[in-house]
Amino acid sequence: MKSVHYNPVELIRKKRDGGKLSESELQYLISAYTKGKISDYQMSAFLMAVYFKGMDFEETTHLMQAMMHSGEILDLSDIQLPKIDKHSTGGVGDKVSLVLAPLLASCGVCVPMISGRGLGHTGGTLDKLESIPGFRTDLSIHEFKKQLKEIGVAMIGQTAQIAPADKKIYALRDVTATVDSIPLIASSIMSKKLAEDLDGLVLDLKFGNGAFMRDAKRAQELAHTMIQIGKRSGVHTIAVLTSMEAPLGMHVGNSLEVIEAIEALKGHGPDDLMEVTYALGEQMLRIAKIRGGRNLLEKKILDRGALERFRQMIKRQGGDRRVVDDYKHLPVSKRSVEVLAPKTGYVHAIDTFDLGMLLVELGGGRSKKEDTIDPSCGFKLHKKTGDYVRKGSCLVEIINDRSTRLEAVAEKLGRVFSIQKKTHRYKKLIYRIVK
Amino acid sequence: MKSVHYNPVELIRKKRDGGKLSESELQYLISAYTKGKISDYQMSAFLMAVYFKGMDFEETTHLMQAMMHSGEILDLSDIQLPKIDKHSTGGVGDKVSLVLAPLLASCGVCVPMISGRGLGHTGGTLDKLESIPGFRTDLSIHEFKKQLKEIGVAMIGQTAQIAPADKKIYALRDVTATVDSIPLIASSIMSKKLAEDLDGLVLDLKFGNGAFMRDAKRAQELAHTMIQIGKRSGVHTIAVLTSMEAPLGMHVGNSLEVIEAIEALKGHGPDDLMEVTYALGEQMLRIAKIRGGRNLLEKKILDRGALERFRQMIKRQGGDRRVVDDYKHLPVSKRSVEVLAPKTGYVHAIDTFDLGMLLVELGGGRSKKEDTIDPSCGFKLHKKTGDYVRKGSCLVEIINDRSTRLEAVAEKLGRVFSIQKKTHRYKKLIYRIVK
Repeated sequence: MKSVHYNPVELIRKKRDGGKLSESELQYLISAYTKGKISDYQMSAFLMAVYFKGMDFEETTHLMQAMMHSGEILDLSDIQLPKIDKHSTGGVGDKVSLVLAPLLASCGVCVPMISGRGLGHTGGTLDKLESIPGFRTDLSIHEFKKQLKEIGVAMIGQTAQIAPADKKIYALRDVTATVDSIPLIASSIMSKKLAEDLDGLVLDLKFGNGAFMRDAKRAQELAHTMIQIGKRSGVHTIAVLTSMEAPLGMHVGNSLEVIEAIEALKGHGPDDLMEVTYALGEQMLRIAKIRGGRNLLEKKILDRGALERFRQMIKRQGGDRRVVDDYKHLPVSKRSVEVLAPKTGYVHAIDTFDLGMLLVELGGGRSKKEDTIDPSCGFKLHKKTGDYVRKGSCLVEIINDRSTRLEAVAEKLGRVFSIQKKTHRYKKLIYRIVK
Repeated sequence: MKSVHYNPVELIRKKRDGGKLSESELQYLISAYTKGKISDYQMSAFLMAVYFKGMDFEETTHLMQAMMHSGEILDLSDIQLPKIDKHSTGGVGDKVSLVLAPLLASCGVCVPMISGRGLGHTGGTLDKLESIPGFRTDLSIHEFKKQLKEIGVAMIGQTAQIAPADKKIYALRDVTATVDSIPLIASSIMSKKLAEDLDGLVLDLKFGNGAFMRDAKRAQELAHTMIQIGKRSGVHTIAVLTSMEAPLGMHVGNSLEVIEAIEALKGHGPDDLMEVTYALGEQMLRIAKIRGGRNLLEKKILDRGALERFRQMIKRQGGDRRVVDDYKHLPVSKRSVEVLAPKTGYVHAIDTFDLGMLLVELGGGRSKKEDTIDPSCGFKLHKKTGDYVRKGSCLVEIINDRSTRLEAVAEKLGRVFSIQKKTHRYKKLIYRIVK
């Protein structure tokens, strides 16, 4: 880090007036902010200026690198395997990482995955994993590296050492209405992911009524930015744009999603979950220069190679590996309530955002970071978009022992499904692959 | 103040997205911020959103009123005279208030003037007054009102009780590059001025190379906004747009400007100073519905009515009133250095901003709020824009006893004047009156 000093007001003004910040200016801004030498109120004014004026690829890369260098950067150089990770911008029922990480490890890719927790309508990989009794997501860097070397996959949470600037800036963006900015989103994600010492990264950029980005155009813009940042940082990055207009798979809720992921690893995954998993997996293999593509992925599901890798991971991370064979070792609510179709027709749309928020209402998600969650509750969907449904048959089951808000949730859940007489053509799940 | 609560993030987002905030939303924002319930970082993000998205007249009025109501509002209802104040956006050599306030009081207008200090290139009325030995600008509200009732004029500094929200927000704007925003400038000025319980307000909006606003168009925009705020708050407001492409008068520096103001009150004021003073005074009389216009103003100068009012004010505010008759009671540096013209020709332009900053360099102004100033130093101009000058004759005299930076200042001062062979037409001093 250079020791050049700048006047923070001048840096804010420069961005406010549409200027381009230099590498050295951005390094100073991020480093001084991380050390508390620049105040939150100056940073938030800067972030709002970025919201309005944007950043070009070069600036965004420099911002990302400054954030990445604010903390520890992993050194995985003694692992010979290609190191590839995947990141999703988040959706409802998205348990892809649970299937994909052990699957790719079984194909010879090293997957050093650092994940997040659920917030608002989206679930988080860490929460899902922690529904497995004993599973630790807080490995030390030493344990993380050791496990990667030995089984090629480990899944942990962001440590305080990795990209602390991002942590601090993200918390500030959250309370200053500056979350929704392409350069800020891109640099935030990439600063954490690129601190993993990767060779490649595959992005699952979701758009639709259950995603942070509502339209594909914006997802595409984010894709281009992240690919450019990756390129300029020497990390091969590919983005897969996927539709999030319905939950992925049939289960929503932490332990329920672990069960669905294990089923997928056993070869019984629902079509949409497998389609996204394979699409992302193919790109990871491609970057890793491992031949075989989708055939190889399917083979590793069929021969249980992926499932065994998942079992090893659970064991290594202190979890109860019996869950793989017997779901009774997972916390799953016993009581269930069915929500019935009010009329006959086709499921025309599912308000996926609302469905995600209903899981929060049930206790299975968070509205604030500090909230604790009930891993045992959730929803089992019986019908998805395009399905034919008869009046009075089950649309979705609420799995829940604890909540006192069951009736309210059931009523709202009925309204999440819109049923029409005619069927339509629906959007493709895999919308585009951007390289 | 209503007790409705809002989510500050939602208010920031609303403005960020170009929405219009309601009276109740703005009241909440300002009241909660003043009480420390909304953080600086949220306010600065909000201010930057206002910088980009603006505010309409209604919003700006509500913002101003919320800021005004954050503190004490004077009650001058037992003063029967029309209560009219004047505000200038600040310039170099601008000693108009010192002449105008006693002049208007002598015409039967009550002038409850709350002024500021100098910062950067502009001087401040308080600093000038305080160069008079003993002069107090920190009267209590009780003393202020009593003096207004008895002599119709008092000039004090902003108290902590008046518009504390503005004080807090202004400090934040200063360090977050959000000063230059019409709705923020207008609401800031008006929240302080309208807390004076005025019937009318005349604004001197300066533009040009010695003003905060460089072009007339922007000054005009500010004029419209402030007139609208005044109208919606029941205070008749008129704006006079004046050019600030040269210092006003021939003296720049605190005690030197007091001398020039007293000379003006004795009928020996320089043309430009008197032109601005009369232009503003006429509008104040107009609002006060006092007949006579410029003739009345000139009469009160000639018959020394204005001068006597100034003398009374000095006495009432604890100052040494002998200064009116004998300038030796004012602190004026003894040493002087002449800056000579490097060639023969016409003074084509004076870089008024730089001239103001050279006073700061000499010690007569502030670069930071905490700086103390030397009231005895300054510049006596011998030539102004349009004047013919012979090589080697004096352009400007530096009056200074203390500074060690004399040579550097002298050298830079030479460069402030640009001399050309031909003469030109110059801008009118009074550009426009906006009602």
